[in-house]
Amino acid sequence: MKETVYTVRVEFGDCDPARIVWFPNFFRWIDAASRDFFVQCGVPSWSETEKTLGVIGTPLVDTQAKFMRTATYGDTLAIHAGIAEWRSKSFVQRYRVMKGDEPILECNEVRIFAGRREDGSIFALPIPQPIRALCE
Amino acid sequence: MKETVYTVRVEFGDCDPARIVWFPNFFRWIDAASRDFFVQCGVPSWSETEKTLGVIGTPLVDTQAKFMRTATYGDTLAIHAGIAEWRSKSFVQRYRVMKGDEPILECNEVRIFAGRREDGSIFALPIPQPIRALCE
Amino acid sequence: MKETVYTVRVEFGDCDPARIVWFPNFFRWIDAASRDFFVQCGVPSWSETEKTLGVIGTPLVDTQAKFMRTATYGDTLAIHAGIAEWRSKSFVQRYRVMKGDEPILECNEVRIFAGRREDGSIFALPIPQPIRALCE
Amino acid sequence: MKETVYTVRVEFGDCDPARIVWFPNFFRWIDAASRDFFVQCGVPSWSETEKTLGVIGTPLVDTQAKFMRTATYGDTLAIHAGIAEWRSKSFVQRYRVMKGDEPILECNEVRIFAGRREDGSIFALPIPQPIRALCE
Repeated sequence: MKETVYTVRVEFGDCDPARIVWFPNFFRWIDAASRDFFVQCGVPSWSETEKTLGVIGTPLVDTQAKFMRTATYGDTLAIHAGIAEWRSKSFVQRYRVMKGDEPILECNEVRIFAGRREDGSIFALPIPQPIRALCE
Repeated sequence: MKETVYTVRVEFGDCDPARIVWFPNFFRWIDAASRDFFVQCGVPSWSETEKTLGVIGTPLVDTQAKFMRTATYGDTLAIHAGIAEWRSKSFVQRYRVMKGDEPILECNEVRIFAGRREDGSIFALPIPQPIRALCE
Repeated sequence: MKETVYTVRVEFGDCDPARIVWFPNFFRWIDAASRDFFVQCGVPSWSETEKTLGVIGTPLVDTQAKFMRTATYGDTLAIHAGIAEWRSKSFVQRYRVMKGDEPILECNEVRIFAGRREDGSIFALPIPQPIRALCE
Repeated sequence: MKETVYTVRVEFGDCDPARIVWFPNFFRWIDAASRDFFVQCGVPSWSETEKTLGVIGTPLVDTQAKFMRTATYGDTLAIHAGIAEWRSKSFVQRYRVMKGDEPILECNEVRIFAGRREDGSIFALPIPQPIRALCE
């Protein structure tokens, strides 16, 4: 499994009155790490793939996250990202958020490669082989 | 199961370049709906319960969300919240995000009632009966 | 001057480790109050005005804000919004954020009605009279 | 004037349906650049200075920002920060947000060094000379 690392510096404003990261911010960073994974694997931008493959992005269908330790401002977090499973019309993207050697959070997402219909609605495309080839 | 409803108006800035709600914003609203549930049930503020019960809040341990339909700016969302299960040292808080009759998202969280140790770290308290009595 | 009121409930996650609203959140709410002003005045959606007047929105050119008192979670804020000045190709939108009778923040923005060129860049349109007529 | 540079990578979720950075996000980054300036100058953490100098942080009193060009995801921004003026009980922190050679935004803030009274309210301290010495 190809794995990329996306680095985050936790800022004061990312933390809540309990002085720990307010959890929705972890999802902000995970979403950035998701896209960063494809960029690092060499997948062109979604505006490019829209023209070539009809893929406008990878919207989220399902997410499951386990919060193991808290983080606070001043911390640097490394988000390890990879694709754990390829299905016919979706894939599982997996993340481990680490603070040094300490696991902070684990997350598994189901995402799709989305196309857009003429009426603006989106739908799941079969996994595009050129993208899969770059990411495995 | 006692259920409360927290209302959200989706704003332009909550949406991403795909013109749909950027998913981390759903978690912002769910966290607000979580606290709102306790407020509506009559549970005092956490600064109050810290003095009386040692409870400083309800940090998240695990979350699972299923994204069923997209939402965009101009939409009004109703977040239905309740506690689906009481365990010995944790509880399952359940949410359904609705746009009129359409389900947008379902979410199940495991949260704890947290106390704070002298060194600043937090730990799971047994479910405080006075709080449970208000929320059932 | 026509004035609208946009109401905000401050949530736990809007506050920082100093237990007060983290200031960028005030700009989130002011941006929502800006658009809400036009909606309440009867201006159609920007996707509608794009077709009829070429107006795709009201991007911000300049903002000045004075922070007078802090706010925290549990507070309800009323954001009063109006247009204080019409210029040839821009306008000044003015806000007062109130907590009951207490002023929390005052803000003056310069915004434009934007059109989009074929290359995707945006530019300032002369003030569209049909919109001005609704907002005065 | 001592100047520091804080680097930001603009992510998909930082952008709005107009495909440009939603402006409140610039204030998120500027706030991070403000604190980063003090860290890079060698000022200890605010929890440290609270014990030694009574300084709990540098809350914002006034901000003025001029938006010159838009930015979008994929862009890397350099936020140059420095203190442009020292007053008796406040200071002016200045920022230039650059995308390569292009200016994106300029911002001037008035901030104070805050102490906290016994009732929890905050007030402006005279500029602490040990901090000023590190930052000039």
